[in-house]
Amino acid sequence: MLYFSCDYSEGCHPKVLEALSKTNMVSTPGYGQDEYCQSAKEKIKAYINCPDADIYFLVGGTQTNQTVIDSMLSNYDGVVAAASGHVAIHEAGAIEYSGHKVITLPSHEGKLQAEELKQMLIDHYADESAEHMVNPGMVYISYPTEYGTLYSRQELEAISSICREYDMPLYIDGARLAYGLAAQDDLTMSDIASLSDVFYIGGTKVGALFGEAVVFTKGNTPKHMLTQIKQHGALLAKGRLLGVQFDTLFTDNLYLEMGRSAVEHAALLRADLRNKGYTLYMENPTNQIFIVLENDKLEDFGRKVSYSFWEKYDEKHSIIRIATSWATTIEDVEELKKIL
Amino acid sequence: MLYFSCDYSEGCHPKVLEALSKTNMVSTPGYGQDEYCQSAKEKIKAYINCPDADIYFLVGGTQTNQTVIDSMLSNYDGVVAAASGHVAIHEAGAIEYSGHKVITLPSHEGKLQAEELKQMLIDHYADESAEHMVNPGMVYISYPTEYGTLYSRQELEAISSICREYDMPLYIDGARLAYGLAAQDDLTMSDIASLSDVFYIGGTKVGALFGEAVVFTKGNTPKHMLTQIKQHGALLAKGRLLGVQFDTLFTDNLYLEMGRSAVEHAALLRADLRNKGYTLYMENPTNQIFIVLENDKLEDFGRKVSYSFWEKYDEKHSIIRIATSWATTIEDVEELKKIL
Amino acid sequence: MLYFSCDYSEGCHPKVLEALSKTNMVSTPGYGQDEYCQSAKEKIKAYINCPDADIYFLVGGTQTNQTVIDSMLSNYDGVVAAASGHVAIHEAGAIEYSGHKVITLPSHEGKLQAEELKQMLIDHYADESAEHMVNPGMVYISYPTEYGTLYSRQELEAISSICREYDMPLYIDGARLAYGLAAQDDLTMSDIASLSDVFYIGGTKVGALFGEAVVFTKGNTPKHMLTQIKQHGALLAKGRLLGVQFDTLFTDNLYLEMGRSAVEHAALLRADLRNKGYTLYMENPTNQIFIVLENDKLEDFGRKVSYSFWEKYDEKHSIIRIATSWATTIEDVEELKKIL
Amino acid sequence: MLYFSCDYSEGCHPKVLEALSKTNMVSTPGYGQDEYCQSAKEKIKAYINCPDADIYFLVGGTQTNQTVIDSMLSNYDGVVAAASGHVAIHEAGAIEYSGHKVITLPSHEGKLQAEELKQMLIDHYADESAEHMVNPGMVYISYPTEYGTLYSRQELEAISSICREYDMPLYIDGARLAYGLAAQDDLTMSDIASLSDVFYIGGTKVGALFGEAVVFTKGNTPKHMLTQIKQHGALLAKGRLLGVQFDTLFTDNLYLEMGRSAVEHAALLRADLRNKGYTLYMENPTNQIFIVLENDKLEDFGRKVSYSFWEKYDEKHSIIRIATSWATTIEDVEELKKIL
Repeated sequence: MLYFSCDYSEGCHPKVLEALSKTNMVSTPGYGQDEYCQSAKEKIKAYINCPDADIYFLVGGTQTNQTVIDSMLSNYDGVVAAASGHVAIHEAGAIEYSGHKVITLPSHEGKLQAEELKQMLIDHYADESAEHMVNPGMVYISYPTEYGTLYSRQELEAISSICREYDMPLYIDGARLAYGLAAQDDLTMSDIASLSDVFYIGGTKVGALFGEAVVFTKGNTPKHMLTQIKQHGALLAKGRLLGVQFDTLFTDNLYLEMGRSAVEHAALLRADLRNKGYTLYMENPTNQIFIVLENDKLEDFGRKVSYSFWEKYDEKHSIIRIATSWATTIEDVEELKKIL
Repeated sequence: MLYFSCDYSEGCHPKVLEALSKTNMVSTPGYGQDEYCQSAKEKIKAYINCPDADIYFLVGGTQTNQTVIDSMLSNYDGVVAAASGHVAIHEAGAIEYSGHKVITLPSHEGKLQAEELKQMLIDHYADESAEHMVNPGMVYISYPTEYGTLYSRQELEAISSICREYDMPLYIDGARLAYGLAAQDDLTMSDIASLSDVFYIGGTKVGALFGEAVVFTKGNTPKHMLTQIKQHGALLAKGRLLGVQFDTLFTDNLYLEMGRSAVEHAALLRADLRNKGYTLYMENPTNQIFIVLENDKLEDFGRKVSYSFWEKYDEKHSIIRIATSWATTIEDVEELKKIL
Repeated sequence: MLYFSCDYSEGCHPKVLEALSKTNMVSTPGYGQDEYCQSAKEKIKAYINCPDADIYFLVGGTQTNQTVIDSMLSNYDGVVAAASGHVAIHEAGAIEYSGHKVITLPSHEGKLQAEELKQMLIDHYADESAEHMVNPGMVYISYPTEYGTLYSRQELEAISSICREYDMPLYIDGARLAYGLAAQDDLTMSDIASLSDVFYIGGTKVGALFGEAVVFTKGNTPKHMLTQIKQHGALLAKGRLLGVQFDTLFTDNLYLEMGRSAVEHAALLRADLRNKGYTLYMENPTNQIFIVLENDKLEDFGRKVSYSFWEKYDEKHSIIRIATSWATTIEDVEELKKIL
Repeated sequence: MLYFSCDYSEGCHPKVLEALSKTNMVSTPGYGQDEYCQSAKEKIKAYINCPDADIYFLVGGTQTNQTVIDSMLSNYDGVVAAASGHVAIHEAGAIEYSGHKVITLPSHEGKLQAEELKQMLIDHYADESAEHMVNPGMVYISYPTEYGTLYSRQELEAISSICREYDMPLYIDGARLAYGLAAQDDLTMSDIASLSDVFYIGGTKVGALFGEAVVFTKGNTPKHMLTQIKQHGALLAKGRLLGVQFDTLFTDNLYLEMGRSAVEHAALLRADLRNKGYTLYMENPTNQIFIVLENDKLEDFGRKVSYSFWEKYDEKHSIIRIATSWATTIEDVEELKKIL
């Protein structure tokens, strides 16, 4: 069985495992007060060229979204997101559980449109009933989106600029950040830091066993952030595990290299699919490939390849997703091409 | 200045005031344990022909929606509503504040469509990611809707039947119940009780100073309901005030009579508006009238009549709402007709 | 049956009823945007000599405590209260429901002790684990306390001074404020305003049908307070009812006069009880009287007088509470004295 | 520097690391749907002799407590705990954040007393105001307690029996379960399963990198538990990491063996401390040792040994904690004895 169902099917990159093994019996203080976390933070700050950034390591994506959004919003605030945003659909209501509405705007291939965001804000503040409604308190976007698509630099700048105009933080969910940056020439992680108010660097889907690095970029860390992380059940006792992993990811450019590898492998597959006449859905340049497949072929394909069923396309077709990752090898790619 | 801006501009029906005055110095136990509440409950149960109903009196609509929905849902549940539903927009996020997502479906003149509800449920339970999503745990509809429209008996039956099939309670927000029932010949409050699992009889907008009567119709009262009401800040110390008011509303058919009066006055205005060539928006048979007005005329109209600005219609026109109520007199109607 | 079970057994003071009746059919905007609310606020601000105070009218005590505390605290904050505080026991967990811990200190006849508060704060901030604990974010006291006792001016000043030192708001629950101020010569409502950061003037227990006036005294109103009130289900549609009532309570010194009347009647009863050899419990100068009664006598007494059972005293005795109120007449007092 | 500050200073037991390394590049489904989780669950069920147990793996202790307690309680419920309980103090208000009060009873060397629990329940249900108070909905105890003390079998049986009488689940926090069971001859994990309704087997402090295994023992798993775990941000994407670890911990009796080792090492230290005349505080038979030390000696001791400051003992003395763990070697013990 070939595994292409998602980008978190394996453990971690061998270098990460090596680092965890090497440091395994070292004694350190808990809760992220260790030297590995310190070192990882320094490396990230240097990498994003943001010496004043404040960084926290959390374990998983939903947890991170819940903790960041809830700690930055006031009671009366909601978070604006595309209707297809992870926080709007696939987090089991974790945002609402923390008391906040997810205010959705139409999804354009997974993306928010700046003009629609602006219009919504204009309408909201012009509405006589605004005080009877949830206040738009933050904008959430994912980069890459849940469909693997990317905001152009211009699109990001437009959204960032609206956020500043309305004094709303812009939060970028970077669960697959490496796969986005590797696919976009004119954007760096430093740009992400500069355009956002807070973003997270996804480790779970990019070579770590687990872990997301939350970066507050504008001296805007919520007060008592450690307490808030703990209150959300998100403070790892052995925080050093996160430090060791991110320290490794940000050594010798490993993080972006893994992104490049996955993106190149996806490109090979995409080319092959196109050659063979497959219909791609929501085309994108990152590590996720959405294919329109005849329902008849699903079962047979599924016997050979582990994929994700995405959604019904029409009566006779389905959309499935295959994803490459840091763990995908050229052999996996060749094997899959044979099957396709 | 003529007041047509909403149906809660005045105090209460003279008979309600009289009852409050007459009982004012009587000493009673607090928190709804008094004889007036008891009497009101008996009258409502008889009126809806549901001897086993369990009734609680709360103060206002948002409070009632928050308390009922939160007490009937589990953590993992959300409430399904039309995108235009009061709980989805104009309750300042009170539902999300209590931890639950409002799962929206398209609004068809304010109404949920049974087919779309059914399809959403089919899709949800067929989705492999269903356990990563909020569970649809209840259906919320308002009768009349926020646009004054009414579900037909058939539409209500269809939605009710889907709810039973999926074992989800159907909750009917009856903030303006009297104005709906008075406008629909083939539906009674007893039908509402029978088709729903819980509904509320709105007092605030129909002749009471304040108050909504929540009716659990299927032996389905959440445990420790009094505690839950208190926990939501919704337990009135002098609960007798609610008892006295609802006892009066359900004496000599006052509640429905007030509904009839408002609906008849609205019909007179609607006829006049049509005669004069006004464009009505989202036409409906109840007490709310939505008029498309040229922006130029708004200011002048507003000097003579207090109305509600609803929303922009196009560049040159706006939608405004005027509402009749139990307090509207035929003189008010004639006066308004002169201005129109 | 004589009613002495609590101070919210009747409707409202005749003058309040008269004002409600007189204004009943006047049309006003909703949600407290009416002229009666405006007038009431002006009168209160003048009365407390605090022209910059910001005032909101809510319906009941638990609702007010929940809304005020939750809107002033951040996620990581808890509220410090005496173990006997209303928020700690008798509000069905409304504070925890809103996400905040009630951090309790020993109750000294219902009161917090300044020294213990100070020590707790010193200990908390010296604790290496402080960031793993709830942050003490506010101090809650009730005046009078749940036992009818009063903080001396000196005690209040000590607590207020600690709050300022630690930059924590001091919140005074004045559900029975009139009964406290009427019993204490050297303290005025203006002093309460000056010593606290926020307090509320209780109407429900002092002559109103319902209603509590929340006063932010230091330019410290939480942002979007109206939205927050609505989100907590605490925004009354016909806000004018609160305005009319508080306007009346603060006309011709009615609020304090009612307090005086109740306190004088309680004093008469207390003197009689002492004369007759009854044992009083937690003696206090306000409108609540706690009596140690032999269990044998409870039933007979209860047939003649409605009282509150408070708690077991010992195997053979119970503590019961009788309360006078604005509605208690000298005839009621004489009647009760005959029974005692 | 010798590390005795806590039992989560190192990574994981070498066998756990080996298993993680060996399975690192295996592809598996996410969210705990993998074969390692399956295998681990089977081993645990066999070990506790409870074939119908339902098991979930979570990442950390506070997260586990929050998720278990919140998913088992209704809105109106609180959780009863000793005042020294972890949920009552050191979880940053995570329980209150989820809406529930922690109802505290006196701590007797870290333990709840059955008699006091019973009396509290009797008093609660006899209280006329019970419906205005938080309902005691669950009992939380930790085994071992936060002070390393252990409930005797008889004590556990008494508490368990009260819980059944009142139909309240008994939840046992086993963050250090191995260290308790290794120190108590007449109690097995199977007994823990039998006496409780839900408990968790702590991995973080006993040889795992992280991880706690929640065991529902009475067919009482809350509905949609996976959704609830996700909603609390507690669902690990690569759930297999938890499966692999617990599978190893429950192979060849490793879990209990690690407990034994730590307990034996603690016993050696305790004997040495007694011999040398140190004063022990809250004596207990498990892996935590509380020592009363002169303040003068703290600094010097701290230069050689990493310990935890616990609390002030008197003006001149402090209580410090040293903890052995699975990682403590006999060499560490000998080294420490030289310093003592």
